[in-house]
Amino acid sequence: MAPALGCVMSKKVGVLLSGCGFMDGAEVHESVLTLLALDQKGATAVCCAPDVDQAGVVDHLTKKPSGEKRNVLHESARIARGAIRDVAAIRAAELDALIIPGGFGAAKNLCDFATAGPECRVHQGVERLVADMLAAKKPIGAICIAPALLARIAGKHGVAAAVTIGNDPGTSAAIEKMGCTHEACAVTEFAVDAKNKIVTTPAYMLGPGPAAVFEGIRKLVDRVLGMC
Amino acid sequence: MAPALGCVMSKKVGVLLSGCGFMDGAEVHESVLTLLALDQKGATAVCCAPDVDQAGVVDHLTKKPSGEKRNVLHESARIARGAIRDVAAIRAAELDALIIPGGFGAAKNLCDFATAGPECRVHQGVERLVADMLAAKKPIGAICIAPALLARIAGKHGVAAAVTIGNDPGTSAAIEKMGCTHEACAVTEFAVDAKNKIVTTPAYMLGPGPAAVFEGIRKLVDRVLGMC
Repeated sequence: MAPALGCVMSKKVGVLLSGCGFMDGAEVHESVLTLLALDQKGATAVCCAPDVDQAGVVDHLTKKPSGEKRNVLHESARIARGAIRDVAAIRAAELDALIIPGGFGAAKNLCDFATAGPECRVHQGVERLVADMLAAKKPIGAICIAPALLARIAGKHGVAAAVTIGNDPGTSAAIEKMGCTHEACAVTEFAVDAKNKIVTTPAYMLGPGPAAVFEGIRKLVDRVLGMC
Repeated sequence: MAPALGCVMSKKVGVLLSGCGFMDGAEVHESVLTLLALDQKGATAVCCAPDVDQAGVVDHLTKKPSGEKRNVLHESARIARGAIRDVAAIRAAELDALIIPGGFGAAKNLCDFATAGPECRVHQGVERLVADMLAAKKPIGAICIAPALLARIAGKHGVAAAVTIGNDPGTSAAIEKMGCTHEACAVTEFAVDAKNKIVTTPAYMLGPGPAAVFEGIRKLVDRVLGMC
């Protein structure tokens, strides 16, 4: 095996999930398309999620709360085909990079940005892993609304990250309040903060469908792997 | 818009889902990668699923029954991002083609092949739609274990379909018992029954990951669209 190929194939990339379904968990398309792009590049995905109850369960047909109780790690396992670990057990030292797909789960289960805004609290294991990745200068990719979570952690830890969530004025204002900067970006493109090794893409913050979303995610994955 | 492009863009392809998670519903990767391939080709996906309780709910982390009750249509809506219809309301006349992703849901919720084998019963709305598509000579794609469901319906309706589920001896024997024929196939390839306009690919019956599975599904989608 050629050394260059061996190098690419050895990349271990954490994929931090937040449930299974865009209204109460990880966005299913963004998560699967991240796994596809990583596999196409020969990288190994290390799926993880917090072992906590979801903030809520939303019926994705009626779009109303279902009153059920579901666990973020166990539901995320549906996307990971069972190959998933508790985020509390993941150390930054074992990863070359970390990617966080979107979905409301990133703003409801990994932190409470969806209800608390810029003052949101972050799940302890998630904050520890992301802060350790930032401190180690290992690349982080964040998709859709996940850059808001990343901005909160970065801002708290003194990192003025530059990210995109597309062009939503409310969310971009919140990102600035958390000590970071926002730049507008098209769904098929990505924003890069080269200094902090942060790559972000709007995905379903803008839509319109899996092909355009995959174009942005594929480029994000390429750039993240190139920064490793 | 050029007529050729308009033609491709106008293809309406039913995507028949069976829940959300490979152990008790639709295989999440296969479903999303089908939607990706269709969108990349400018086709419109018409997601549908039966409005029935799942045969069971399996915890995808522990791989054990969870004792919960979930509905196939409502869980499938997680993959479809809410844009899904009851299969009972879908008519073959409105579709140019139909694709059925795999996952145990295809063999537990759309029919009971997983427990009953070749004598399995099929959900009434599913059987009606698939039989109508066969009778109208409209192309059908089936992925992973879904060709077993398709073989059951085809056999019952006098269509000796040729399909693949990869190379599993037990399942291929069952397919032959249902009046159809099986041919071995690699994960990145597909089998074609040109006479009956049936295209099948093994996907996660063989694995090993999303990139190889997508290669087979992308080729299947191309062929199905080419047959419309």
